[in-house]
Amino acid sequence: MGLDVVSENRSFGGIQAVYSHDSVACDCKMTFGVFLPPQARYGPVPVLWYLSGLTCTHENAMTKGGFQEHAARHGLAVIFPDTSPRGEGIADDEAYDLGQGAGFYVNATEKPWAPHFRMYDYIAEELRALVTSQFPVTDRHGITGHSMGGHGAITMALRNQDMFASLSAFAPIAHPTQSDWGRKQLSAYLGNDECGWAEHDSTLLLEEHGWKGDLLIDQGSADQFLPLLKPEALANMMALRRQSGEMRIQPGYDHSYFFVNTFAGDHVAWHAARLK
Amino acid sequence: MGLDVVSENRSFGGIQAVYSHDSVACDCKMTFGVFLPPQARYGPVPVLWYLSGLTCTHENAMTKGGFQEHAARHGLAVIFPDTSPRGEGIADDEAYDLGQGAGFYVNATEKPWAPHFRMYDYIAEELRALVTSQFPVTDRHGITGHSMGGHGAITMALRNQDMFASLSAFAPIAHPTQSDWGRKQLSAYLGNDECGWAEHDSTLLLEEHGWKGDLLIDQGSADQFLPLLKPEALANMMALRRQSGEMRIQPGYDHSYFFVNTFAGDHVAWHAARLK
Repeated sequence: MGLDVVSENRSFGGIQAVYSHDSVACDCKMTFGVFLPPQARYGPVPVLWYLSGLTCTHENAMTKGGFQEHAARHGLAVIFPDTSPRGEGIADDEAYDLGQGAGFYVNATEKPWAPHFRMYDYIAEELRALVTSQFPVTDRHGITGHSMGGHGAITMALRNQDMFASLSAFAPIAHPTQSDWGRKQLSAYLGNDECGWAEHDSTLLLEEHGWKGDLLIDQGSADQFLPLLKPEALANMMALRRQSGEMRIQPGYDHSYFFVNTFAGDHVAWHAARLK
Repeated sequence: MGLDVVSENRSFGGIQAVYSHDSVACDCKMTFGVFLPPQARYGPVPVLWYLSGLTCTHENAMTKGGFQEHAARHGLAVIFPDTSPRGEGIADDEAYDLGQGAGFYVNATEKPWAPHFRMYDYIAEELRALVTSQFPVTDRHGITGHSMGGHGAITMALRNQDMFASLSAFAPIAHPTQSDWGRKQLSAYLGNDECGWAEHDSTLLLEEHGWKGDLLIDQGSADQFLPLLKPEALANMMALRRQSGEMRIQPGYDHSYFFVNTFAGDHVAWHAARLK
């Protein structure tokens, strides 16, 4: 499991690095970012996974999210995976919300996606194993994400409750089986049999499994994608399910990284309190 | 002086906005960013100017610098100007360090730059007047910047000590009359008579005028551009001149925005303490 160094920059006393590696799950070269806080020099630190949204690479949150400052204060490593396989010979679509940059954190079963679009296994198994073997980190991992990445974070944590000790999301795609951000991609990647879609829907997974801990969701009230995100479905299920946690509607915030950046400190602190 | 709204995003309880306007100084449309902190809703706030480096637009520091969090805490507005005139019909050069994206904060006198490349007047006069007339700000202004923008901040403040109450810089081009980041641009924009260059050299200006207040400079020890930046010239002059202030060599930091982001909080706090 060799890592190629793409970049390493000192940041808040730690290192913000980018590596690439040959992925078995995705059968192509994959790139990811890792922030190691200064505390990692003295011993293993807990890990926060940040899954990004549509069109993003590993880089967007790493440069615009502002997580490093807070992760350095709290002593967390942060992992910034890419959102899909990429490159020549990898299937793609001209739409921004399908194919490269839009992996939706599933294992595709349908053509032409099946050979490479296995982001679920990539994150949950391959990259997790790589991170825990290559960096000074503990087995206490939390997960968060934005938009499609919020969907990825919630679905991955609810299905793997032993793997993650803390969970939050920024403006997640909350009910993709009932949204145009979801039905299009789930049918393309998984086929038209909707029975298999439920395990990639945060609201339905919460209904079935709940979450062992408490849950933090931030959602901007001025988010231009509210009709696609459907936070009301998740809020309803959290209340019905008596799920510990909070959904915070943040007045005036939109879907941009200015929203993510504003609340990054709250989320890092939330995870740090639960990971230590 | 009409402003066209390019974008407005809620950020840390304030607004991160981008506007464009017809510039008289540059004789073209210019774009700039403004962060207004939440305190600006209740009364005028002091202003911090952030001048960017080579290749940047108004956007780089606005999305990657992390200034909003600190400016919101301290109640400062932050202005993010562009680094040059831009567009079709505006002179340019194929090099990254001359022409569009590389205005060097001077008023060009030479062809083909003279008609539009008047960033000194644009920042010090036109944009300042626009900002103070259009936004809820006081006449207490500080200035900072990175690399070419650090050069711009120091030269503009030392030449206009009544206009600025506080001054800092991140890895400034500190002695451009003796650097390839300087001699090329000053000769292109101002001509080969080097007598006129001294008023665009931070080290020479500090020697001549000093700075009325104290001065904060951060410089990464692993900066890949140290031979071009020449911090030793400025450090030498600060000591010779008995100039109040500090130059901090930050171990392991390079020239990237990860460096700027790391120390953004220190600089905003420094300015806030002097602007209030």
